[in-house]
Formats: sequence, structure tokens, C-alpha cells
Amino acid sequence: MTVNDKLNLTMLCDFYELTMSNGYFTKGYKDRICYFDVFYRQCPDGGGFAIAAGLEQVIQYVQDLHFSAEDIEYLRGRNLFGEDFLAYLADFRFTGDIWAVPEGTPVFPKEPIITVRAPSIQAQLIETYILLCINHQSLIATKANRVVRAAQGRKVLEFGSRRAQGADAAILGARAAYIGGCHGTACTISDQLFGVRAGGTMAHAWVQMFDTEYEAFKTYCQIYPENPTLLVDTYNTLKSGIPNAIRAFNEVLKPLGYTKCGIRLDSGDMTYLTKKARKMLDDAGWTECQISVSNSLDEYIIQDILRQGAQIDVFGVGERLITAKSEPVFGGVYKLVAVEKEDGTVQPKIKISENVGKITNPHYKKLYRFFGNDTGKAIADYLCVYDETVDDSGELEIFDPEATWKTKTVYDFNAKELQVPIFKDGQLVYDCPTLEQIRTYCLEQVDTLWDEVKRFDNPHSYYVDLSKKLWDIKYGLLKGNNK
Amino acid sequence: MTVNDKLNLTMLCDFYELTMSNGYFTKGYKDRICYFDVFYRQCPDGGGFAIAAGLEQVIQYVQDLHFSAEDIEYLRGRNLFGEDFLAYLADFRFTGDIWAVPEGTPVFPKEPIITVRAPSIQAQLIETYILLCINHQSLIATKANRVVRAAQGRKVLEFGSRRAQGADAAILGARAAYIGGCHGTACTISDQLFGVRAGGTMAHAWVQMFDTEYEAFKTYCQIYPENPTLLVDTYNTLKSGIPNAIRAFNEVLKPLGYTKCGIRLDSGDMTYLTKKARKMLDDAGWTECQISVSNSLDEYIIQDILRQGAQIDVFGVGERLITAKSEPVFGGVYKLVAVEKEDGTVQPKIKISENVGKITNPHYKKLYRFFGNDTGKAIADYLCVYDETVDDSGELEIFDPEATWKTKTVYDFNAKELQVPIFKDGQLVYDCPTLEQIRTYCLEQVDTLWDEVKRFDNPHSYYVDLSKKLWDIKYGLLKGNNK
Repeated sequence: MTVNDKLNLTMLCDFYELTMSNGYFTKGYKDRICYFDVFYRQCPDGGGFAIAAGLEQVIQYVQDLHFSAEDIEYLRGRNLFGEDFLAYLADFRFTGDIWAVPEGTPVFPKEPIITVRAPSIQAQLIETYILLCINHQSLIATKANRVVRAAQGRKVLEFGSRRAQGADAAILGARAAYIGGCHGTACTISDQLFGVRAGGTMAHAWVQMFDTEYEAFKTYCQIYPENPTLLVDTYNTLKSGIPNAIRAFNEVLKPLGYTKCGIRLDSGDMTYLTKKARKMLDDAGWTECQISVSNSLDEYIIQDILRQGAQIDVFGVGERLITAKSEPVFGGVYKLVAVEKEDGTVQPKIKISENVGKITNPHYKKLYRFFGNDTGKAIADYLCVYDETVDDSGELEIFDPEATWKTKTVYDFNAKELQVPIFKDGQLVYDCPTLEQIRTYCLEQVDTLWDEVKRFDNPHSYYVDLSKKLWDIKYGLLKGNNK
Repeated sequence: MTVNDKLNLTMLCDFYELTMSNGYFTKGYKDRICYFDVFYRQCPDGGGFAIAAGLEQVIQYVQDLHFSAEDIEYLRGRNLFGEDFLAYLADFRFTGDIWAVPEGTPVFPKEPIITVRAPSIQAQLIETYILLCINHQSLIATKANRVVRAAQGRKVLEFGSRRAQGADAAILGARAAYIGGCHGTACTISDQLFGVRAGGTMAHAWVQMFDTEYEAFKTYCQIYPENPTLLVDTYNTLKSGIPNAIRAFNEVLKPLGYTKCGIRLDSGDMTYLTKKARKMLDDAGWTECQISVSNSLDEYIIQDILRQGAQIDVFGVGERLITAKSEPVFGGVYKLVAVEKEDGTVQPKIKISENVGKITNPHYKKLYRFFGNDTGKAIADYLCVYDETVDDSGELEIFDPEATWKTKTVYDFNAKELQVPIFKDGQLVYDCPTLEQIRTYCLEQVDTLWDEVKRFDNPHSYYVDLSKKLWDIKYGLLKGNNK
């Protein structure tokens, strides 16, 4: 069972994809092979990289692509589309090729996360869903990775379902947060569907349901004596919450021989309260009691309160993670980069713009990542034309595509192609890894980045260079533009 | 067909709702009647109000509530829940009462948007989905209403699907944006499901598919001669885009007698380019040609470029609307406000907090809005205990609940209860209005607010006062707190 199984999302397309497709059909362009790249332009939050995520849902979507009779009827009612085109849609399925970087891969601006090669209409119609899926999950995985790094080894749990932007945002957001390194979620269905371990203990309502806070805690400990976590801030954290928790631990857990337990704080000054709480718990002999906190946390607040000496074992991160509040848009785009002529030659295409940052890297490309053989660290990424190969047995001079006089010679390196084949002629040729594998891969790959690329403030700009051949093609298209 | 029909969202709950529910069950509290309020604490973007939205999806969710055999199996596997409790869940359905303010109503901080009265487990389990649904759609409806007001009567289209946080965020986001006043969407499925009129013409890919921009435009005009909109910024807006558009209009539309058409700009300086574009189009006789713009717009940029004299007829607003980028969290909460004793008396409950802003308004309440009979404008909202009624035939002195010495006497007014019954004993007792009716109602209700409440900067704080009786109960609970 998956989210996508339940609702056919073929009609989740921008209407212009249908008007353009009808146009391609009418003009006889429907079988023209096009190449589109998915890429993003800027790292969220001024960071040094992003984490690619969402591919598994893209795969399910592509496999499920079809227009139902109901869909065709709706489109007919719009009085814009020819009957031939509607008949074509009724038989529509995806027959093209897709390459992608695996989920969990750190990716940099302007490099293709996904490349689609397909007949024009097919390539055009899948634009919106691919973008929203990759944009959403990459956004959350990237944010989660930042939060997890800020927590310096402490557990981070995703707690944000109630503030998510819709059901998918909660369910798949928890999935993406797990890829980025979170240890679990509060969202039950994400555990059921994807195996993101869900946990949780009590809300304020539990405490309020009882005549006294102590009775609420005692009852909870009696029902869940193995590692109960008590929410201690319903009335007064230091005066009643923690003393009542300690009393419940003493009276219920101690006689049973249990030593594992926890408290959670959801309001107040986290540094002050957790220091006090740690001392009260330790003094009472509950040294294994874990302190969890939640309350509008993000990577900056976590960094800050840890610097202040807050005594925290587990962070519950809600709204600021599940919406990526500080920058809630991952600006991935889907751009035409090449068209195949009738003789099969690949003709590069470029989109020029008054905003220089919006100019695209043209052509059907390959994306390499160079790793130093000595350190295992990522040195640079390298984009070249599809028919080029990189020889990593010797030296290679690369240059900055925006400041071409800046060159760098790489040697003793290992070149790894980042994109892998996902669909070939419409058939899935990729074994999706498990979520656990994706998460492990992500953490390993983030480890290949230098700390300078990973820091939050003014990170080093990682090199994403173009081959000389690709750069010449791009420059030629820019100069020759006078359509 | 609806989004919710497709995936049973019962398991989209926070895990603690299940552990608490199992606790209530074990403790014999399962039939205890609880009252929960949904309310929010702060208006997004420093605004003066929010628009309530999402109720229709909450209704569908509540009607569909059930645990499948698969769900029970998953829960059994967690080794936390008793078999009696699991058997209870297998027969679970909602049998309680729900009241809510209708979708499209302007709402203010701390007033109940939804009130749930139900046996404890039922009331607890629906927390997460109700919140995420109301939080998401209210967020987007509120943002859309701001954008629409900034556009001062010009059309605003929702263009953000590709940057939405998941499929639901796109589909239901377009619905919410329409409630808030948008005129349409680019999202096809939102039209199909909800009747949010979807439109759209071409992407840059269409222009790039042809050998020349002119050929792309001419072809599009030939296929869609009735009111085609051409995207003019693929290469150079002023030097090629607009001249080619005018040529296509002249050569294709003019001979057919069509005068309606449009151009769209997606990059560059909107003020400068649209002024130039307007002149070029007018000089060529295409005075009816509409100018659409899109490119990271929001209410502030729209206000600003209109102030600068930009010549724009239609705004396409994408990522900053569909994610409410400037403040992507609507912080609605779900708090226990009362419990029924065995004799049926309603016992008010409060949540106290070190953060004063997190203290709740206790009790089962009524929410009134007072409208001036002379102006029709909203004067104040008024919260009282469920067994109070407001006599609007005379005068009423109300006071600020946070600064109780500030009083105000209202007279010649009309008191309207804002919440209406939605479910009674688990049965739906509400006729959902059409989306068109909700949108119209929303715009009418926003019209009842004074401009001072609606302005973006430092809006007037609208009065949400408590009755004397309710205030006394709240104060008594605060003073008497020493659990």
C-alpha cells in the first residue's frame, strides 16, 4: 500500500501541459523526442547543498500514468481539445527513458537530478508532478539533515504532521525527514506505509483528563512501565511537573525494577528548565531518564541551546521541519535541454532569460562526481555532453563555468556517474532501495562532503564545472541567439 | 470523486493519540465525554485576521473514519496495545458532535473554529487530521485573500502546484486559494474535483520546440485563436518576444476578426517591461491584449509594482502563495476545554503554560460576532459559556480579557452565532455549500471588516472578548491551579 496507489495523479498537471500537448499533437510533433532536466538553482537556507528525495513516488506515478474515461470526459467538456488528441490520451502511457540521482544523494545547484527523454507530450505532461514530488521531499530531506547535524548525535524526531501543508506533506514529509537523518516520527501512517518508526506518549489532554497531574503520570507509568515519557509542562514544570514525574517513577517504576524513562518539555526556557530538570532527576537517582524537548525548534535554536549547555537527549521538531519554515520552497525546475532531430542527432536547446540565473545548461548531459582517492571526499562535480567520458586515471583540468579563468587540476581521483537509469522505453529498470538503505546512503554521502561545504553560515561553494565541449555549446547558443 | 475518497486517513494520527487512547480505554475513561476546541494564536504575516477553510475535507474524513484489518494488524505488531482496545478500534466510528464556523469566515486568534464533543478516544484520535487540514487550507485561503486584496480587482491565478509541499498541498491548496478570492488555478485536477477553473497556455518549452519564436507563436494562435496568451520572455522580451507576438496576432488573429489575446512575462523587471509592453501593444492596435505576469510574486511585490505604475491585468502567483512562503505555518491547536462528569455537568479544563500566550480559554463555549445595524460592519466577537445567550436588543458592556479595565459598550447591534452544527451523534447535519458559495461568502464576510483590520501593516486588533461569566471561570482556574 502506498499513498500514490490511492489516487491517480495523472490529472495533477498544469493545464498548459495539456494545451501544449494538444498543440504538439496537432502540429505533428507528438513523436519528437525531447530531453528535460530537473534541477534547482539555489540551496535552501543559504546552505551548501541539498539532499535529493522523492524518486520512489515519481516512479510510482510514472508507472500509474493513465487517463480515465472520467478524465477524458472532463477534458472534452473544456472545448479546447481535438477528438484525435483525446483518443490519444485515452491510450496514453509513458514509453520514454528516465535517469536520476538516487534518493539521498547530496546535489548542487544547476545539476540534473532527473533527466527525462521521451516523446514531447509524454515528457511535457509529467512536468508538474515530478517537480512537486522532488521539490517537496528534497526540501524536507535537506532541512531534516540540517536539523540532525545541529543536534550533534542526539536524536531528532519529526513531530510536525498537524502543521503540515496537507496529508501528503505529513506522510511523505516524515519519509523525507527520515532520509535526511531523523530517527523517527510521530506520524503513525508513515510508519505503516514506509517503516519510519513512529513513537509518542502523551499530550496535555492526557494530564488534563485526570484530577491531578500525579494521577495522570502514575496511570501512564502503570500502563506503559517500559520507558514511559511524561509531559511535565501542563501546569508548572519545576514546581509540579518534574516532582510529580519523579514520584510516579519512584512509586511505579522502581518497584518493578525499570530504570528507563523520560520527560518531555513543550514550553518555557529550554536551557534553564532542562538544566534544572537534569539535576532534579539525577539527584533523585533517575540518571537514565531522557529529557525530550519540543517547541518551535529548528537547526539554529538547537545549535544555540546546546551551546548554552541545555541538557537534552531528544529533540522533537515540528512545524519548522515539516514545512521547512525558514525557506519553504525548493525551487526545482523542469527545462527542455535538447530535442532529437529526425536523423537521431541531438540538438541542444537553451532557455535564455533577462535574469541571468535563469539561463539553463543546455543539452543531453552526463553528471560526474569526483572523489579524492586519498580522502574519499567529494572534490567537484562535472557536467559533460552525453557522448563524453571522463578518464580518471590521470589529471583533468576543470574550470568555473561563470569565471572561466579560474581553473583547477584534479588528479588521483575517482569519477562516479551520479545519474542511474530508472526507466528504459517505459520499463522500470531500477531496484528501489529500502528506506533504511536510502537513509544510510544519505548519511554516508553527506560524510563525503568537506565540513566547509556543510557549515550553515557562508558555506564553501562546491564546484559544479562544465566540460569544455559543453561550455562551448552553451556559449555558442547564447551568442547565436536571435530567434 | 474527492481526494479523501482515495486514501483512508484514519491512521494519519500522531502515535501518542493511540497510546493515550489505549490508556483511556484501560483506565475506563473511554466513554468520558470531552470537549476540544480548534483555535489559532496569531494571525499569519502580522495580519489582522485569518480565513477559516478545510471543513469540507474534515467532514469527509470524519465520515470515513475506520480502522482496517491491515491497520489493526500493524498496531498489534507494535506490542503496546491491549487486545480489548484493538477490538474496540476494529468497530470504531465517530458518534460525537462537531460544531464549526463555515468555510470562508474571517476568524481571529483564540476563538474556536471547530469544537468537538465526543467520547475521549474519538475526540483524541481525530486531532492530527483536523488540525493539519484546517491549518493547511486556512493558511492558504488567508494568504490568497491578502494577495487578491493587493491586486485591487485585477485577476489573481494560483500557479504554484510544482512548488507545493506534496500532491494534497497542490490540489487542496488551489481549492483554498479559490476560497480566499483567486480567480482560477493552473492545477487541472482541482478543476476536475472542485470546480476551481483551471487555465494555462504555454511554457518556455513550447517556444523552444520550434525553430523560431515567431513560428511557435503563430502555431499557437492558429490552434487557439480565441484569446491565446503568448509567453514572450524565452529569448528577449522587448526585442523579440513582444514584436513576434504582435506579428502573430496581426497575421493569424486579425484576419479572423479576433481581438482578445494576451502576453505573459515570467522574468525581468515587471514594472519596466509591462509599461513598455502596454505601449507596444496599444500602438499596434492590440488594446484588448491582456498582460499577465508571474515570477515569485506575493502581496508585497504586487502592491509595490502597482504603485510604480506597472501595466498588469493578470497576476499568476506561484510558490509564495501555494506554500504561504512568508509564513508557511498556520499554528492552529486542538485543546481540551471541558469534560462531562457522570451527572452530565460540564467541568471546564484549562491548559496553563510558562508561555502566557499558550494559556487556553477553558469551557464549552459559544462564539458570537456582533455586527453594527447601521454599517453592517463587524464590531467585536464575543465568547461566552455554552448556557449563556446574548440579548442584542439593548446595550452590552464588553471588556478586553487581557486588559480588563478597557471596556466598550455596544448597542444597535446584531449578534450572530458563528459556529453551526456539523455532526450530531455522529450524523452529518450540515449541508456543505458549493465552492462557489463559499468563495462568495468569504468575500462578503471580509467586506464586513473595517479597513483598519484589513491593512497589512499594523492592523487594528479586532476585539475578541469574553463574557464576565467565562472570564470569572478562567480566572478561577488560573488562581486555583496547584495540582
